[in-house]
Amino acid sequence: MQALLNELITLVGSSNVLTEGDLSAWEQDWRKRTHGKALAVVRPGNTDEVAQVVRACARHLQQHPACGISIVPQGGNTGLVVGSTPDASGRQIVLSLQRMNTVRAIDAANLTITAEAGCILQRVQESALAAGFLFPLSLAAEGSCTIGGNLGSNAGGTQVLRFGNARELCLGLEVVTPQGDIWQGLSGLRKDNTGYDLRHLYVGSEGTLGIITAATMKLYPLPAAQTTAWAAVPSMQAAVDLLGLAQRHLGAGLTGFEVMGRFALSLVARHFANLHVPLFADWPFCVLLEHSDHSSASHARAQFEQLLEVALAQGCVSDAVLAENLAQSKTLWQIRESISLAQALEGPNIKHDISVPISSIPAFVQATDALLQQAIPGVRLVNFGHLGDGNLHYNAQAPLGIDAAVFLREQEPQVNRLVFDSVLQFGGSISAEHGIGSLKVDHLAHYKSPVALQAMRAIKAALDPQNLLNPARVLAPIGTSELP
Amino acid sequence: MQALLNELITLVGSSNVLTEGDLSAWEQDWRKRTHGKALAVVRPGNTDEVAQVVRACARHLQQHPACGISIVPQGGNTGLVVGSTPDASGRQIVLSLQRMNTVRAIDAANLTITAEAGCILQRVQESALAAGFLFPLSLAAEGSCTIGGNLGSNAGGTQVLRFGNARELCLGLEVVTPQGDIWQGLSGLRKDNTGYDLRHLYVGSEGTLGIITAATMKLYPLPAAQTTAWAAVPSMQAAVDLLGLAQRHLGAGLTGFEVMGRFALSLVARHFANLHVPLFADWPFCVLLEHSDHSSASHARAQFEQLLEVALAQGCVSDAVLAENLAQSKTLWQIRESISLAQALEGPNIKHDISVPISSIPAFVQATDALLQQAIPGVRLVNFGHLGDGNLHYNAQAPLGIDAAVFLREQEPQVNRLVFDSVLQFGGSISAEHGIGSLKVDHLAHYKSPVALQAMRAIKAALDPQNLLNPARVLAPIGTSELP
Repeated sequence: MQALLNELITLVGSSNVLTEGDLSAWEQDWRKRTHGKALAVVRPGNTDEVAQVVRACARHLQQHPACGISIVPQGGNTGLVVGSTPDASGRQIVLSLQRMNTVRAIDAANLTITAEAGCILQRVQESALAAGFLFPLSLAAEGSCTIGGNLGSNAGGTQVLRFGNARELCLGLEVVTPQGDIWQGLSGLRKDNTGYDLRHLYVGSEGTLGIITAATMKLYPLPAAQTTAWAAVPSMQAAVDLLGLAQRHLGAGLTGFEVMGRFALSLVARHFANLHVPLFADWPFCVLLEHSDHSSASHARAQFEQLLEVALAQGCVSDAVLAENLAQSKTLWQIRESISLAQALEGPNIKHDISVPISSIPAFVQATDALLQQAIPGVRLVNFGHLGDGNLHYNAQAPLGIDAAVFLREQEPQVNRLVFDSVLQFGGSISAEHGIGSLKVDHLAHYKSPVALQAMRAIKAALDPQNLLNPARVLAPIGTSELP
Repeated sequence: MQALLNELITLVGSSNVLTEGDLSAWEQDWRKRTHGKALAVVRPGNTDEVAQVVRACARHLQQHPACGISIVPQGGNTGLVVGSTPDASGRQIVLSLQRMNTVRAIDAANLTITAEAGCILQRVQESALAAGFLFPLSLAAEGSCTIGGNLGSNAGGTQVLRFGNARELCLGLEVVTPQGDIWQGLSGLRKDNTGYDLRHLYVGSEGTLGIITAATMKLYPLPAAQTTAWAAVPSMQAAVDLLGLAQRHLGAGLTGFEVMGRFALSLVARHFANLHVPLFADWPFCVLLEHSDHSSASHARAQFEQLLEVALAQGCVSDAVLAENLAQSKTLWQIRESISLAQALEGPNIKHDISVPISSIPAFVQATDALLQQAIPGVRLVNFGHLGDGNLHYNAQAPLGIDAAVFLREQEPQVNRLVFDSVLQFGGSISAEHGIGSLKVDHLAHYKSPVALQAMRAIKAALDPQNLLNPARVLAPIGTSELP
């Protein structure tokens, strides 16, 4: 092993091969669920160095098959499914892309930005803005997460309704393969039908098929105006009806549509009194709508008012407020973004990141709420999310008076099983935006179609026959897929 | 072989296993470049039958490896790259999806339509419209092509600028694998991060990895109004500048942006005098812009007028007309759509379907025009296409006085090489929307990155180890990739 470490030091310099001291920043996952032990944290400074590190590891593994080393690619280490930290074996090398943080180019006429994998998302947004453009990927961790990690996990966020996931924003990739070759696929093309779309295979593969080292992403013209509305709705069905109405009235101008349950909002009101949550406590759900307009602020507002008028008349909105200015808009979004934090302050809870077809959301919520209440009387459901994408963060908090830690330990497997079975029944996904990592690897083996799993295994074996990149992530080792 | 045919007759009925009579409709490609010979044309009526046919063929090939049979999936047989017709061996089974032409479901609240692979594209558009929605995929062959073929070849068309290719419209697939398994991936989900995105691997794989039997596609709300403008521009750079201006002014409302060279338009004027082409003969290019608006016709028009005013003031538009009504809009689009036909009436020509980054289009056109004029003095360039996507149909017509057939025969390899070399130099694609098929298979082997080709070969071998589905399409047999 020392020979390999020496070779890596030769390749990237001793200050970029970390083996001693506190390596928690790379070894512990974001939600602090696990703390692994890395053989080393290696931080190459450019694509060639990444390729050389991979080649050195591949060669070492070939010469010493029993050494069992592998590589865990890592960006900002903000993932939620334990997919980018090492296991406890001490045989995994964390390959951190942090040092590769250059915005390589902005092409205004082509509406593209090319950034290295280690660029912080917020940096990419700011670079785009400085050039007069919008880079619409936006999510809670944007101050720490990297564009490479966003692509590896196909990150979602609050603007997916209009602009799609990280996947839809990506036009081209530069990737280091498990053999240490460099695929120069950094195209800024909107159209390219020359063979299999490798880009879409690497995006969302969570570092198991290749290491994304740079990407060319779409930019958009900035809107002339943005307006935010907050509407109380009498039911989840009404929220779905409002979504359809808003899509007809605003078209692509509808850039945000978030739903929040009364209990979720009450937690924000309790833990962040300064935010003055518009609770509309008579109604079970509130919706946050965002309208982006390319004409003018007055047109944006007029369109929004017209929409709300129709929605009130049709009964799919019970009450509503329009943000009067940017500060009010920001506060409304801050309330939405504070739900997770408020929930954490309320105590440990069981989180889900699921999706079902939008038309099935009301029935899914009704059926699953009932199942959970039956299994755990008094369970408190924190239900909120990106309704426009069919994506709910459908979380369970301990009943009042029950110790949250005990609840989590004792009830998580049952709650997961109930929720995921229900998701499957409604044609949904057990992981809408967070991915699989190691946290959901057993669930995937259980819930995913066997035909799809077989194809995925064949692809992994074909592209990474040594199983060098992020093994046991996404795909469970064969024969180990027993649900907890 | 007869035993296999008998088995297929048992599976799908004798009237759906065609071996005699005129099979040109399935054996000859759309542009009549080749006429193959099928072992049989098999027309299964549902997904199970497709799976059984594939299993029977796979088993036969396993038992008789020397028989050399394979399967060529076929939709409407309107492809432009000889990808869905059999070769001359008489050993290929054409598996036609024509009989699978049911629209299975429309989910209004989820904005999705689920259609079988053999549905004619126009039928899908009409079904969507009847339910009050827009299915935006639109291309010249829409009256004959099928949605399965559109997905297999990742079709483009005139609305890609706003809505993306067939790929971007697809949420889920049902696929029969080369092993005859059925992957039920007909999800209507906007977000699903559960493993490798197989959907995107099958889309655009031209029937070489699996047979698409049905798809769930996105629908959109219908716009309140649509307006069309026709603008003369002083240069290709001005056209690119106008595109940027239009994107800033109209945002997602800009749903079409087509560029047409003066010579291309003059051919339409010559061969379709009734269309009254607005030639603006003083200027080298015209642009067709389409604006879709969700507020009102008056807002749409006002926005467009404002845009053209700014564009005229900035000098990126020399002259312009706005369609006064729907009929005028349709005529303008008809002029654009008639270029290919006018070109055919002018005589055989060398066609290209290329893309480069939008910012590079002016330099690409200037450089490539000069190279071609130098190589073939007097060559007439028919240059038009989807500028908003960076996609040009950059075609070469024989110089005046030169026999077109001789020109085609003698100059095609040289012209292709010149154009594709130039495309490569500008970071472009040799096939923006038509695909590879067998027509461009040697070019792909020459121009595509070896790392990408290696990954593609590994994936093909992993998913279709018998090489049963559409062999020698997309990927050339190893060792045969010599350019003509």
